[in-house]
Parts: sequence; structure tokens; C-alpha cells
Amino acid sequence: MRRRSFVGSVIATAVLSGSAARAWAQGNALASWNDGPAKQSIVDFVTRTTTVGGPDWVPVPERIATFDNDGTLWTEKPFYFQLMFAMDRVKTMAASHPDWRTQEPFRSVLEGDHEKLAAQGEKALLEIVAATHAGATTEDFRKTVLRWMATARHPRFNRPYTELVYQPMIELLTYLRAHGYKTFIVSGGGVEFMRPWTEAIYGIPPEQVVGSSIVTKYEMLAPDKPVLTKEAKVEFVDDGPGKPAGINRFIGRRPVLAFGNSDGDQQMLEWTAAGEGPRFMGLVHHTDAAREYAYDRSSSVGRLDKAWDEAVRRKWLVVDMKSDWKVVYSFELK
Amino acid sequence: MRRRSFVGSVIATAVLSGSAARAWAQGNALASWNDGPAKQSIVDFVTRTTTVGGPDWVPVPERIATFDNDGTLWTEKPFYFQLMFAMDRVKTMAASHPDWRTQEPFRSVLEGDHEKLAAQGEKALLEIVAATHAGATTEDFRKTVLRWMATARHPRFNRPYTELVYQPMIELLTYLRAHGYKTFIVSGGGVEFMRPWTEAIYGIPPEQVVGSSIVTKYEMLAPDKPVLTKEAKVEFVDDGPGKPAGINRFIGRRPVLAFGNSDGDQQMLEWTAAGEGPRFMGLVHHTDAAREYAYDRSSSVGRLDKAWDEAVRRKWLVVDMKSDWKVVYSFELK
Repeated sequence: MRRRSFVGSVIATAVLSGSAARAWAQGNALASWNDGPAKQSIVDFVTRTTTVGGPDWVPVPERIATFDNDGTLWTEKPFYFQLMFAMDRVKTMAASHPDWRTQEPFRSVLEGDHEKLAAQGEKALLEIVAATHAGATTEDFRKTVLRWMATARHPRFNRPYTELVYQPMIELLTYLRAHGYKTFIVSGGGVEFMRPWTEAIYGIPPEQVVGSSIVTKYEMLAPDKPVLTKEAKVEFVDDGPGKPAGINRFIGRRPVLAFGNSDGDQQMLEWTAAGEGPRFMGLVHHTDAAREYAYDRSSSVGRLDKAWDEAVRRKWLVVDMKSDWKVVYSFELK
Repeated sequence: MRRRSFVGSVIATAVLSGSAARAWAQGNALASWNDGPAKQSIVDFVTRTTTVGGPDWVPVPERIATFDNDGTLWTEKPFYFQLMFAMDRVKTMAASHPDWRTQEPFRSVLEGDHEKLAAQGEKALLEIVAATHAGATTEDFRKTVLRWMATARHPRFNRPYTELVYQPMIELLTYLRAHGYKTFIVSGGGVEFMRPWTEAIYGIPPEQVVGSSIVTKYEMLAPDKPVLTKEAKVEFVDDGPGKPAGINRFIGRRPVLAFGNSDGDQQMLEWTAAGEGPRFMGLVHHTDAAREYAYDRSSSVGRLDKAWDEAVRRKWLVVDMKSDWKVVYSFELK
């Protein structure tokens, strides 16, 4: 029953930010997009692929649209939000792990030294995620995620992380679904970190979330009381070439439309592009330091370099956040 | 374009056998079930969980129903049909593998010695599947599966394998979907062996098929022409305790209803039963040697032993194929 109340908090957040957004979007499905070539290319594609009898019509069951999450549907700075969550878990769990006070990378987390932490690279970050996620049952982990979503605040915006979703992308998801597209997340993030809240925030149910995972073990906690316990072992990394593999494994169909924002999305876009018939590939380019963040080729989180070059060469859409988006977050509308 | 014609053949088969079945089922959603406690318990459960305002009402997004495939939705004798497929592949590929003539388990396959093959155990069967599936791109494998489905015939019934699906279970799937349930396959079989035809035959789209998988590798066959190639390495075994893990990983919600037929389904049913609120667990018991096959505790394929005892103890439904099913296959209606 407690589970319901956590879910309730997250849903309440979504509904509050949603009401202003709905009023805004009334009569204009992509209200937060400025008129221009980016918006026009999306509308054109959706119109073409859903015009019955037209040369580019796509049958409804094949209308699969895949979206990266971090940096594509919500913000990914100063760190991926799953890492912000894991760092908060380190602080909560530190009392029973006295060795963490002197042991890296935990020491940097406890001292709040993000520079020093970042300098330790990807492996240190994975270590933090593994140490804080392993040992929990899937049900307990779900509750912990929902509790964090309901209480934690983003350091710059001082708002729940679930409010840092991009209003134009929410509108795009809704617009696609209204035209018979089935929307999926295909993210390098942990699948069990996303699923507790994606339905309330994005309208994407758990079974349409593809992500990285760690191994779970089936055990009997008591007679007739089975649990799945998370182990400290990576099962699948849904990033880079793992994204087409993840799409093939979980969805089993090739997307017609795919959106990402970094080099980790390049293979998903290539895989989408290689299908027969009409395809749409898009990248979000973070160009707006005032409203969100500005970064691309030299960023350690969410680097956009090779994928950008390929997008230019192959004429894929590159969304310029600063000029293409009228609104970034729905709270700007309040 | 060739792809369409293979799919076309399979769909045509389904539609032909479907028309008689539809006439039969008209005005009676579970026409192929004899009236009795089994049918009644299903109807009662679906009515209770879909009665708005009732104490057992389940919200639509949570109406998840999972079905084992081999022995639950279609026949699994004399061997799992994927193994029948793999054995046919051995014969086709033998010309370019002269060593198979003398090397087990391939020799037994080529000599048609099923007894000797079965005696070599599970590992030999896996070896045959691996040897015949690895190296293919996912797209080529899909075409090979569809071609086989359109041309191969079952040794006893002399019909396409896709006609050996259980009419009462097809009706159950349809009945559940008509009541807002989302139907999934959760099978120990290979996910890429099932997906090419499950939508046409069961009305279950590829993204709702959970199964075992082998590792795929993302490669560039030519510039801008990526492929996923199947490797000779098992990625995930969706059987026994792997079924709850697979449900958690692919679906991310606990089923409300689950159906299986063997000990490999026991953990899926336990996992389903452990959820809060109304749950329905069912097993198909193969008791009909005349119309299908009769086997349970001592069968090497599809053994039903421990799961049966647990079902009796916990009062789960055990369907008696001989007495509960008026019709097994839809071709009986022609």
C-alpha cells in the first residue's frame, strides 16, 4: 500500500506541471517548438507516414519510435540523474560503510567533490552505482527510486528531477502516439531506475522501456514468497552498439523514428536509418546555457561529436535547443 | 519485398484456419472449452478483475497476462518445434559441413535417429540449435524461419506447425485482450524463432514476446549498412527461475494471470501468485493421446511433476486437455 503513495507523489508532480503545459499546447500539438525547419520536418514526416494511400504510409503495428532518455527527454547535467541518485544513496548508506570515508570513489562523493569524482572516470561511477544498487530486491529498489524522485531536488533548478523533462519532447511523444506510433525509451540508464516513473511522466509504460540492467537472482525469502535480488554484476549495457542489440532483443522490430543526443545514440540512429521505407533520425543539440546547458564535442557526459558529423553528412535533424524550442521545461510556463 | 511474401504465407494459413474457428466461436468467446470448473474459473476471474467498482478490479495498465509457448499455446512433441526447425537446418546445411556425417549429435540428426539423439541430452540439442543459428544476420534468420513455417510439415499431423496451436488457448488470448489484458509470451524458446509469426498466429506482436536469446553483434556490412549477427553464445535462458527474471527485465510489471504446462513454468507461476490482489495461475495438462499427446511426470520434453504438485497444493487451475477442451486444433472444425 505504501507503494501507491510513492507513485501518487510522482503522478501528482506530473499532473501539476502537466496542466499548464496542456493549456499551452491546446490546439497546437507542438506548441513548445518554434516554427521553422525542425518542427516542419517532424510534422511532414508524421503526416507522410500516416497518410493512408500515400507512398510513405506505414502500417500502425510498424510505427515504432525510440527515444534515448538522458539528454534527449530530460536533463543529464551536472551528472546523469541516476548517478545523482546513487550519490545520495552513498550518503544515506555511509553510516553502515565506515570504510567509504577514506576509500575512493566514495570519499569524493561524501566530500561533495564532483571534480575529483569526475576525474576518476566511468569505472568509478559504475562502482558507485553497483555498490548502492546491489543487494536490494527489485520491489525495495522501486520504492527507493520513487521516494528519491518525490524528495530530491536538482542542485541548480531546486526542483524535482521529474520536472526537468523537456516540454517539446513530451509534446513530440504525445503527438506521435496520437498518430498511432508506439513510443519506447532506449537508454543507457538502468531499466529499473526508469520504469517506476516513466508512465506518469512520459506516458511510456514499463514494458516499453529498454535500458541497461544488472543480473537479478530468483530466491525464496519465505515459503511462497519469492523475490528477485539485484546482484553486483552487469547483465546488459544498452549504449552505443548495445542500442541496436537492445532494440532487437526487447522490441524485435526496427524503429521508424529515433531520437538521441550523443555519440552513444549513433548506432541506434544508423540502425533506424538502415530500414526500408521512410525513416526519421533526430538529435537534440544542447545549445542553451541560459535555460538548460550548452555542451557538445568536448563534454564528458553526453558527448556529441561523431554522431553530429554523421547527422550533418546524412541530413538527419539536429535540433538546436536554443532556437528550435520556445520552452524547455514546463515550469517556465507558470 | 520477398519478406512480405513469407509473412503473407504464414498469415494466409492463420486466416484460413481462423475463419472456421471464428464461425465456431461466434457468440461464445470460449467456444472450444467444455462447460465446467476450468472454463468457469477463467470467466469468473476475468469478470471479477474487470468489474469497475468491484473489490477485485484491476486497472487496465496492470492487466498483464503471460503465457508459456511450447506445450501451452502449441504442441511440443515429438520435440520442441524449434528443434525440429534446427534439425531441418542441419540437413540443409550438411552439404557444407561434411564432418557432420560422422560427428554427434549431427550424425543422429542426419540419420533420423531421434532415440539416439534424445539420449544425448539437453546439451546436444543446444549444440544443434547453436550450430544452425549462429553466423546468420537477424534479418536472414527471420526469413529462414518464415520459409520453414510456410513449407515444413509436422511428422504426425502432416500440417504446418503453425496449425498445431491450441484453439482453446487462442480463444483465451482473444478473450483476455477483449477485456483489456495485454498478452505476452514468456517462453524458454528462442525469441527470434517466435517473433516472425506470433503476431499473425496469436495476435501477439514481437515486442510482447519474451524468450531465450543468443548474443548479437553489431557490425557494418558496408558503409551505412549495419547488421546484427547472431553469435554462438547464449545470452539469456528464459526458463525456470529465468522466467521471473525475464518478466522483470522485459515487462517490468508482475503478471496478473499466467499459464504454463511444465516444471519450467513453476517459478513464473510462483512469481505471479506472490503479487498483491487477485491472481490467476494455470497449467495445461496433456492428457489426450488421441487428439494430441499424453505426458506428464516422466516426460523428457515438457515434464510436469513438481509444478503439478504445487498447483494442487495451492489450488491453481490444472486444465485437463481431454475433458476440458472440446476442440484441440482448429482444423478439427473443418
